[in-house]
Amino acid sequence: MPSTEISTEIPVMYFDTDAASVVHNIVYLRFIETARTLLAIQIGMSFEEIARTNIHPVVTRTEIDYKRPALLGDTVRINGRISEWSGIRFWCTFEVVRPRDGALLVTCKQSLALVQMPQGRPVRLPAGFPENFSLP
Amino acid sequence: MPSTEISTEIPVMYFDTDAASVVHNIVYLRFIETARTLLAIQIGMSFEEIARTNIHPVVTRTEIDYKRPALLGDTVRINGRISEWSGIRFWCTFEVVRPRDGALLVTCKQSLALVQMPQGRPVRLPAGFPENFSLP
Amino acid sequence: MPSTEISTEIPVMYFDTDAASVVHNIVYLRFIETARTLLAIQIGMSFEEIARTNIHPVVTRTEIDYKRPALLGDTVRINGRISEWSGIRFWCTFEVVRPRDGALLVTCKQSLALVQMPQGRPVRLPAGFPENFSLP
Amino acid sequence: MPSTEISTEIPVMYFDTDAASVVHNIVYLRFIETARTLLAIQIGMSFEEIARTNIHPVVTRTEIDYKRPALLGDTVRINGRISEWSGIRFWCTFEVVRPRDGALLVTCKQSLALVQMPQGRPVRLPAGFPENFSLP
Repeated sequence: MPSTEISTEIPVMYFDTDAASVVHNIVYLRFIETARTLLAIQIGMSFEEIARTNIHPVVTRTEIDYKRPALLGDTVRINGRISEWSGIRFWCTFEVVRPRDGALLVTCKQSLALVQMPQGRPVRLPAGFPENFSLP
Repeated sequence: MPSTEISTEIPVMYFDTDAASVVHNIVYLRFIETARTLLAIQIGMSFEEIARTNIHPVVTRTEIDYKRPALLGDTVRINGRISEWSGIRFWCTFEVVRPRDGALLVTCKQSLALVQMPQGRPVRLPAGFPENFSLP
Repeated sequence: MPSTEISTEIPVMYFDTDAASVVHNIVYLRFIETARTLLAIQIGMSFEEIARTNIHPVVTRTEIDYKRPALLGDTVRINGRISEWSGIRFWCTFEVVRPRDGALLVTCKQSLALVQMPQGRPVRLPAGFPENFSLP
Repeated sequence: MPSTEISTEIPVMYFDTDAASVVHNIVYLRFIETARTLLAIQIGMSFEEIARTNIHPVVTRTEIDYKRPALLGDTVRINGRISEWSGIRFWCTFEVVRPRDGALLVTCKQSLALVQMPQGRPVRLPAGFPENFSLP
């Protein structure tokens, strides 16, 4: 059974930083989306199925707390997991840490839904979710 | 006395959209940051003072709810205001609407602090805040 | 007859800058795309027609020279025009200047084609191009 | 002696794509910058030295040709190398390919300089460049 947890490292690039010499606040959400996508693929999400069904995973809410900044030259680690789920919605929880000194940089919680596009209609989570993300 | 409210329009570009044919969830935070920066300038924030003092406004928490998506070709309006403030922190509240049909797309609340870089030490808000954002 | 030239101003935001305290090199291409899109709309490009026909304007080549950097707090002006066109391709020429001191920051040339998606097949430019950008 | 070539793979994310269902043209330059940075680190670039000296590698020109688009679900491979160098400038050459079908998606050439900030003064390449990128 695939794990509903993910952990991935990303090196900080110039384009991730801003003139305050830290990683820009919006960029952590890009890091988190990368981790979330790798997690979704791990439990069976397929972009072919998404293209075929036009059902897309959609973020419906984000809460993010910034505790300490990452710097140019850092590598950050994003730990994420699916923490709750109901009929049409699931929640993911993330933390961004800096392995070099163990600092906790960011915590984040996101709720997502599967949405039939272009109508924007929510669709029930697949049977067996979260171990199974295969679209019908 | 300068207004502590802002309202600004931004046309959606290709680079704001994704393969689900909607504006990507992270992009609304760029729209909101543009509105927040224009608001900060309106109440006296100066990038010259920021460069001189190395005190930067820093987002410490974001809550954002996605209600309906913007599409390529839309122009979105971001309404924002400073809604609360204390000694070292203030909160801004935003909504992103679509003037064409009046749809409410996104609501967002952010807390910010003024931070002395590179130490990362919070600094008291300027006297007269939020009508005054001039750094000491 | 609509002008095939555009000039638009964009204020620099934190997310446009990097840890070298300048606007990041990739960001000027976002500024340029904004100007290019406004120019295309000015000569009749319609996102409704794009959605209906699934014919998209596609960048096929970019040449960009970086002369001087923009800084946080600057407003930049992007001047652009359609400089050449043939049966299935056109070229746009841009310069990014800083009105405050008249500095020339960036020059750029891009070639574009109209492409029928998802096949990726080039389509002839509309009759009357560049004054007319209305898709068939 | 460290190699002056790099090859790295990046999975395409939603935020890399646009409403034409392809990777947005600007995004390939982010992919290329990631490869270029990994290459620079490989030959000895250190962000600690950059922070200490305030000498930054700066892109002075980019030429990029778009041949075929990457799609959501693709993993792209960026191959890069330092192809030429002189006293104060060097050129890197990149190609972005799709390992799944061997398609060549993008070719790119960039010239860079080492620049003393904030003055913006070019600095001579380190002795032993390109095998050595250690700043004085």
